[in-house]
Amino acid sequence: MSSWKDNLIDIAPYVAGEQPNKTDFIKLNANENPYPPSPRVIEAINSFKASGLCKYPDANAVPLARAIAGRLGLSEENIFIGNGSDDVLALAFRAFFNSGKPVLYPDITYSFYPVWCSMLKIPYELIPVDEDFNIRAEDYRRENGGVIICNPNAPTSIGRGLDFMREILDANPDSVVIADEAYVDFGGVSALPLLKEYPNLAVIQTFSKSRSMAGMRIGFCAAGKELINALRAAKDSYNSYPVDSVAIEAGCASIADEDYFRETVGRIIKTRDRLTSELRKMGFDVKDSSTNFLFAAHPKYKAPDISAFLKTRDIYVRFFNKPRIDNHLRITVGTDEEIDMLIGALKEYIK
Amino acid sequence: MSSWKDNLIDIAPYVAGEQPNKTDFIKLNANENPYPPSPRVIEAINSFKASGLCKYPDANAVPLARAIAGRLGLSEENIFIGNGSDDVLALAFRAFFNSGKPVLYPDITYSFYPVWCSMLKIPYELIPVDEDFNIRAEDYRRENGGVIICNPNAPTSIGRGLDFMREILDANPDSVVIADEAYVDFGGVSALPLLKEYPNLAVIQTFSKSRSMAGMRIGFCAAGKELINALRAAKDSYNSYPVDSVAIEAGCASIADEDYFRETVGRIIKTRDRLTSELRKMGFDVKDSSTNFLFAAHPKYKAPDISAFLKTRDIYVRFFNKPRIDNHLRITVGTDEEIDMLIGALKEYIK
Repeated sequence: MSSWKDNLIDIAPYVAGEQPNKTDFIKLNANENPYPPSPRVIEAINSFKASGLCKYPDANAVPLARAIAGRLGLSEENIFIGNGSDDVLALAFRAFFNSGKPVLYPDITYSFYPVWCSMLKIPYELIPVDEDFNIRAEDYRRENGGVIICNPNAPTSIGRGLDFMREILDANPDSVVIADEAYVDFGGVSALPLLKEYPNLAVIQTFSKSRSMAGMRIGFCAAGKELINALRAAKDSYNSYPVDSVAIEAGCASIADEDYFRETVGRIIKTRDRLTSELRKMGFDVKDSSTNFLFAAHPKYKAPDISAFLKTRDIYVRFFNKPRIDNHLRITVGTDEEIDMLIGALKEYIK
Repeated sequence: MSSWKDNLIDIAPYVAGEQPNKTDFIKLNANENPYPPSPRVIEAINSFKASGLCKYPDANAVPLARAIAGRLGLSEENIFIGNGSDDVLALAFRAFFNSGKPVLYPDITYSFYPVWCSMLKIPYELIPVDEDFNIRAEDYRRENGGVIICNPNAPTSIGRGLDFMREILDANPDSVVIADEAYVDFGGVSALPLLKEYPNLAVIQTFSKSRSMAGMRIGFCAAGKELINALRAAKDSYNSYPVDSVAIEAGCASIADEDYFRETVGRIIKTRDRLTSELRKMGFDVKDSSTNFLFAAHPKYKAPDISAFLKTRDIYVRFFNKPRIDNHLRITVGTDEEIDMLIGALKEYIK
């Protein structure tokens, strides 16, 4: 006898960073920004005309698309907005990768990619990064149904330049190439200047990291009109209104405050560089980071042990129990005060 | 030669009600609530502590799940929350309908169902409603991979009682049965009391209609734990954080204000019943509505012509150019003032 239970979804979901069930701890495990969003964002929400919420939001979040396009020197028709960049990425996989051929991405990268492929039944091929965790552009010269490169990459924190993306694009004129740039504002090099040359390039960014708006769920894709139209068709086949009216106004306010954006990003970069040098003094191998997190391993202490010790000090960092990176920690750059606490705790542990 | 263009998504998306590119018109085409959300919702947004937006929202919107569960006399583990009920429905199709057998639903119903089936490659079988547009429970006694019933149904506005849903559930112990209750608060009969008896029942509701929060994107599913867990797995395989932190607080505020909810719903029902009787006086055939809209046809005037005339008076109603219903209009119940304008315009046209 078949049962309704037999027909339920059977899939291994993405596992996010641990959310401890308490409030007083230092959370360096989800790559969140430690600073609040721009005061203009706060003002936009707290003065939002909520009586209008009885109406549906703009289906394409056009006011926000226009604001982003204006900042990037593009047209609003080149911008697609979704409910965080995870939503945009999931729609992009569905909209762009329909060839039946394997999509290529690095073996060490954002761990949601295989989940989306599995969900959407998209075949994929993992391309190993080199022993220093660098993505090699020459490895992406093979038949494929699409390419996605997280740049700067996570959890490695390593960023690559425009020549690298150009090499991948030149090798793949018949596939859509996605540049997942969630962390690019912290010192990475964006592929945005290549959009005019490559109609098969999609650049995906988020307001969750550099704009301190993880709680508001805004991500976007910048691309040529054909790719944007495919994303809109995918969205309109799933959920017509993914971005709410408050998020649209709050996002516009964030874009309007470029000074605040630069200042907080600059502050995080400064703290990151200080943490990098402190960790290296303690003997850690730390990759040069182009992100708001560090990827670090210690030759004498095991990553899960360090992570477990830090938890006893109410400090949460990210450890991935996965091949190749199971002795590394991913440490989000918090405030200077948080990072001082982290350094203090590590000095206790690492003699 | 294959091109990246060949691999883009190819699908006919859901088409929402027209959004005229002007501001001064009467919008009765999207089943929106004409009244603002509760003053408590407005207060919750305008006093929201937006500095916390740098952190991700609660992945399962637990505070809101708890509030809804409390109102419905359920546990928070029986509630799944998504980015509007379209998001919840799309995830439910993916989470529940994996048998490979056809999912059953009426030929006249919410037109997003075939879009989701097409998107997710779920086979489906349309079951004709009778000539008065009634769904017949006995038609759902056949092999299937799931059943979805919009009750009250859209665009017909017809609601059915608990015996009807029980008959469908009794005939389908081996399938998940979804009750899509987007409009139930306007006088329909909810299947919620059946949840304890039927672990294969999922009841899906929205804050977009009766709670005046279409712009905030909140929908939910109430069901047994096994179905809720399947929905969470589907969500965590797509976008871990679909509901933002502002929406969670605003939703809680709406649930807290039961008086306002009852008052505005009551006002809409009163206006609806007045409009029904006025339309019937003009010769319209109007179904008895259990929703915030009417489904009406006129024996002498064609629906597209009436709709076109109303547009010249800046009044937008919904016309579906589809078999069986292409002489019907779906008219959202607005404020009394808006409905007076509608009645005035119709009286001009229908002599």
